[in-house]
Amino acid sequence: MNTSSSGFDRVAASFERQGMLRLMGVELRRVEPGLAELWLPYSDKITQQQGGFHGGAIGTVADVAAGYAGLTVAPEGMEVVTVEYKINFLGNFNHGALRVVGKVTKPGKRLIITTAEVSHVGADGKETVCALMQQTLMPVPKIY
Amino acid sequence: MNTSSSGFDRVAASFERQGMLRLMGVELRRVEPGLAELWLPYSDKITQQQGGFHGGAIGTVADVAAGYAGLTVAPEGMEVVTVEYKINFLGNFNHGALRVVGKVTKPGKRLIITTAEVSHVGADGKETVCALMQQTLMPVPKIY
Amino acid sequence: MNTSSSGFDRVAASFERQGMLRLMGVELRRVEPGLAELWLPYSDKITQQQGGFHGGAIGTVADVAAGYAGLTVAPEGMEVVTVEYKINFLGNFNHGALRVVGKVTKPGKRLIITTAEVSHVGADGKETVCALMQQTLMPVPKIY
Amino acid sequence: MNTSSSGFDRVAASFERQGMLRLMGVELRRVEPGLAELWLPYSDKITQQQGGFHGGAIGTVADVAAGYAGLTVAPEGMEVVTVEYKINFLGNFNHGALRVVGKVTKPGKRLIITTAEVSHVGADGKETVCALMQQTLMPVPKIY
Repeated sequence: MNTSSSGFDRVAASFERQGMLRLMGVELRRVEPGLAELWLPYSDKITQQQGGFHGGAIGTVADVAAGYAGLTVAPEGMEVVTVEYKINFLGNFNHGALRVVGKVTKPGKRLIITTAEVSHVGADGKETVCALMQQTLMPVPKIY
Repeated sequence: MNTSSSGFDRVAASFERQGMLRLMGVELRRVEPGLAELWLPYSDKITQQQGGFHGGAIGTVADVAAGYAGLTVAPEGMEVVTVEYKINFLGNFNHGALRVVGKVTKPGKRLIITTAEVSHVGADGKETVCALMQQTLMPVPKIY
Repeated sequence: MNTSSSGFDRVAASFERQGMLRLMGVELRRVEPGLAELWLPYSDKITQQQGGFHGGAIGTVADVAAGYAGLTVAPEGMEVVTVEYKINFLGNFNHGALRVVGKVTKPGKRLIITTAEVSHVGADGKETVCALMQQTLMPVPKIY
Repeated sequence: MNTSSSGFDRVAASFERQGMLRLMGVELRRVEPGLAELWLPYSDKITQQQGGFHGGAIGTVADVAAGYAGLTVAPEGMEVVTVEYKINFLGNFNHGALRVVGKVTKPGKRLIITTAEVSHVGADGKETVCALMQQTLMPVPKIY
């Protein structure tokens, strides 16, 4: 088993346990060392008052994608928790899907710094960046 | 109709349109000029991998409560969109409920600055602050 | 020596070593457990292009005041470094002085979460909040 | 005069007016549409208690570089003010210089979203990223 597939299993094990992600319809698409990619297809389960993707949904997938990127570089037996994040919303979209790529900027024993970029993917395949996030993660012992 | 109940109606009209909030089980509890309060009872719909409240759920209710606080001070015919927010997580909790209070720090025509404090309320009524947020909102014409 | 004066000495020892604060004319005014207050009188050393207080100066004093608040709760032999902060600017001012109060929101062994409020104090004594900050600190061994 | 040199003049006119940047020894190195680069050589004017670059200095140059990137895309007769920023510190350094590159992520009439990356450049030319920032700017009429 190579590092990448091992990382995928590790992330998938966490992903399966997250009730909120199932509820929203989030899909785990790609895991590499220092990187994780999620997709969130549009549905009325994740809309705001204008019918667009809810900012809370965008924040959630950004938080999770960057967190999973961080998980791939956390020591064995550890997982990560979010210390904080900051997100800028660059536009609102509906229909299509969100593609979210989380990346590790700086790994570390005490803290892991990550970023996430959220793009909207239209029915025609056109991608537009719709949110940017910076995040701080902390490795903690895995307890489950 | 006083300002407060008018503000409640305005916020409630937006709240009813948000599919994601219904899905999560968010409750609109209080609206005053410059303030909005939401509750989120614990359920397996909003959990993360350790069974605690999902950071995405905490971020969502913080974003929405502060956004509704901002909506109460937006001009007639306008609503607000989130430009950005930053949230610090202070601890993780399960069971009980989250109480979220959003407040306007600085109203304005072009931008509205808000904060939100998220507290966990245990079965015994004990409250513990579990997240702090700072947010920037922008008034935009209401289109629905 | 009571806790408060002990905290003051500890903070003052760090303050004296910071070339940038001397350069800017920052004054250490108050230190209590979990709190530190700085003042920054207006001068042409800390202005931006319109003649107001420079955002960099406001960010610096907010960062330092909250950092010193955190230092008062760090274990003996430790100091703190800034992991990250986020600051909202609420208005621009010139003349008078800035009063900055940093407070610990959540102490901790691994991380300390703080906030800072920056107010402008006019010649007539009128105070107006001009910036809000949230910050994450990390205790590290003191090496000097 | 091409766009780039025109942008340089516009930024330089603002730069010359900022007392704090002169005080710190900041150098304006490069201006292109949507980009600005500053350098900050190490000196005891911008140190913290351990003798490294002060976080306030790092925050200032990040804020200014991203702000100048934004200025290059602001309409004629307008300048920009910082609404808010968030910065993560990735390591501390002394000696050498800081190289700061600000970039526009999303231009706009009402708001401009930018990022800045701060790198430490050692005496041997080795570059290490030491801070990342996300920022929101607002165009305002130029009044000087």
